[in-house]
Amino acid sequence: MLSKKVLELSGQHSVIRDIFEFGMERAKEVGAENVFDFSIGNPSVPAPKEVDDTAVKYIQDGDPVAVHGYTSNAGIYEVRDAVAKSLNRRFSTDYRADNIFMTIGAAAAIGICFKSLVDGPEDEIITFAPYFPEYQVYAQGAGCKLTVIPAETDSFQIDFERLEAAISEHTKAVLINSPNNPSGAVYSEETIKRLAKLLETKQKEIGHSIYIISDEPYREIVYDGIKLPHIPSYYNNTLVCYSFSKSLSIPGERIGYIIAPSQAEDFDDLLAVFIAAGRLLSYVSVPALYQKVVGDCVDLTSDLSVYQANKDLFYHALIEMGYECVEPGGAFYLFPKALEPDANAFCERAKKYDLLMVPGDSFGCPGYVRISYCVPTERIEKALPLFQQLIDEYKER
Amino acid sequence: MLSKKVLELSGQHSVIRDIFEFGMERAKEVGAENVFDFSIGNPSVPAPKEVDDTAVKYIQDGDPVAVHGYTSNAGIYEVRDAVAKSLNRRFSTDYRADNIFMTIGAAAAIGICFKSLVDGPEDEIITFAPYFPEYQVYAQGAGCKLTVIPAETDSFQIDFERLEAAISEHTKAVLINSPNNPSGAVYSEETIKRLAKLLETKQKEIGHSIYIISDEPYREIVYDGIKLPHIPSYYNNTLVCYSFSKSLSIPGERIGYIIAPSQAEDFDDLLAVFIAAGRLLSYVSVPALYQKVVGDCVDLTSDLSVYQANKDLFYHALIEMGYECVEPGGAFYLFPKALEPDANAFCERAKKYDLLMVPGDSFGCPGYVRISYCVPTERIEKALPLFQQLIDEYKER
Repeated sequence: MLSKKVLELSGQHSVIRDIFEFGMERAKEVGAENVFDFSIGNPSVPAPKEVDDTAVKYIQDGDPVAVHGYTSNAGIYEVRDAVAKSLNRRFSTDYRADNIFMTIGAAAAIGICFKSLVDGPEDEIITFAPYFPEYQVYAQGAGCKLTVIPAETDSFQIDFERLEAAISEHTKAVLINSPNNPSGAVYSEETIKRLAKLLETKQKEIGHSIYIISDEPYREIVYDGIKLPHIPSYYNNTLVCYSFSKSLSIPGERIGYIIAPSQAEDFDDLLAVFIAAGRLLSYVSVPALYQKVVGDCVDLTSDLSVYQANKDLFYHALIEMGYECVEPGGAFYLFPKALEPDANAFCERAKKYDLLMVPGDSFGCPGYVRISYCVPTERIEKALPLFQQLIDEYKER
Repeated sequence: MLSKKVLELSGQHSVIRDIFEFGMERAKEVGAENVFDFSIGNPSVPAPKEVDDTAVKYIQDGDPVAVHGYTSNAGIYEVRDAVAKSLNRRFSTDYRADNIFMTIGAAAAIGICFKSLVDGPEDEIITFAPYFPEYQVYAQGAGCKLTVIPAETDSFQIDFERLEAAISEHTKAVLINSPNNPSGAVYSEETIKRLAKLLETKQKEIGHSIYIISDEPYREIVYDGIKLPHIPSYYNNTLVCYSFSKSLSIPGERIGYIIAPSQAEDFDDLLAVFIAAGRLLSYVSVPALYQKVVGDCVDLTSDLSVYQANKDLFYHALIEMGYECVEPGGAFYLFPKALEPDANAFCERAKKYDLLMVPGDSFGCPGYVRISYCVPTERIEKALPLFQQLIDEYKER
């Protein structure tokens, strides 16, 4: 006598989990060093030493009750203030603690933003393929519709014609994710300016605000000197969802935040609404110790240089072999075209070489595959000849 | 253009927050040592030394990437196994890791249980006054109805006549909280047996399962040798929601779990449904480091003896002065009758003595007040003459 809706979701086939389990089984047969699991998007570098030192300092020198005590719903004031000041240094903004709402990772940040903006099943959030599949689940949780604009596969920027046609009176927000999982694309300043202009126009036409929800867990992982536009500097009604999972390599500790800029239309209500939305999701507060730790380490990142090295090596090698792929500007994914129309069949064939990749179908973008390169560089070096054999097999067909 | 429902919740007046803020303001005027804030239910004793030592050990000696890495949705297998074995030692059960689902505190455990059992607004969960007010918010979040059975104020056990009358085909679960916040009552074995028997009968009558959701954050805080019945040993369809917040004094770290006994009717689906419910609530995984820490410290508790000492001192002193109060069996609250019918007016009068208490109205039990005694014993000693003055004022009226 369980919830029918939740039971249905629980029964849905998870492609990524299947690949992971296949990899585990296969590792038992041929040895873990011979299975090339490029399916998982976990940071492969440790947290900066300062993160661990700061945690130990709080444990050993902090007030023994307060260090593990409840923190306020919106987060610790000093941590929010530290985040605001760090953002100001980076993006020439003028945030205060009041603009920052701490969350249990970016997932909670997105869940809270969705819940804060929608009222019922007719309400709609628009996003763009390829997209992180859990967005569908968060939308279901908030009780609204997620409308997906098909991918613009030439550059993985935005198909503005289709976006304009999709916006309606039911549109509450447009969800973007740049650097993107799975494509690695970074939206250019031109894309952001055009998006801002379109939404300004549509807001006036429709008569209510349309928010940009900017999911930015990969903000610190950008390549080749690319400068990431800070969205609230281009569009007032922006909610930024951030996580320290990737930048500080602490995904398990679940620390993130929402930026709510003062110039957002509903700013006076936003913090209170975030708190209420969090309570509806049964959140209480953000983990205490690592919340304090990120407050002290907010300007640091892990040594992320391995991702640039991996991207350079992997991308250029695949292109040279003849794979088609848009060069990623950030994140730690390649998103090449599969060598046959059905990416699932392609991934099955790749498995014969013990190359594990995720079909783009999972991300709303059939015909492509996601390759996560957050792995030691040697793994990529060892896998490259297998990618060559794979494409050779297709050439011989 | 925010969610109307969430905006409405965000505007709801929080009595406990008002008291807290009054206390802060008043402390500025007369000094913190002269304000007796008995409104807050935070542990007042530190975590056991082993908790901190274990955390430092993992940080310094653990695999530097894995220690802060994502953990699986259901929690770390070894931690779940350690919890199961600890419960087996305590309650002569035969739990395995599969019976344990780690959660981000008891709040998340309750949110996940609600979401897992209900499908729509006609579905109903029954609880008993006095009750933790956030239960209403979690029910709203799950999209179901919370039906409250009025308090049985003679002993704060269960009013079975009213419960029986309230159960209908829409009843999905009965939510209990023993030791209770705010009354401190512990349900006797007789109460649990009677509840189990009634629900067995009603399940057959109605033709579907009715779960007991047992919210047990105060399980380790019981007094005078009282033995707490382990609910799944009396009733198969029980889901236990536990938190380490009070037992290990780490409320800010947000670690708890659900017990799903193998004999529960829907056991084969339960773990998968909990995972799906958690995803709908935008959870990803339980904080990694402290999840590992509780796994290693699962048999420990903080030194909880101060709560027994405080209960003895405070309860007997109030009774001697002439207050009416049921002696608590656990938790760290007294729930005496207000000295006038309107508990809000009584609390206002108490404020003149800088005694801060929470009116029972917040807990669905008007005419009573909650006194949290998770404070240093000296604070209580210093406050007792003021309680005397307060009752004297009423006697003189």
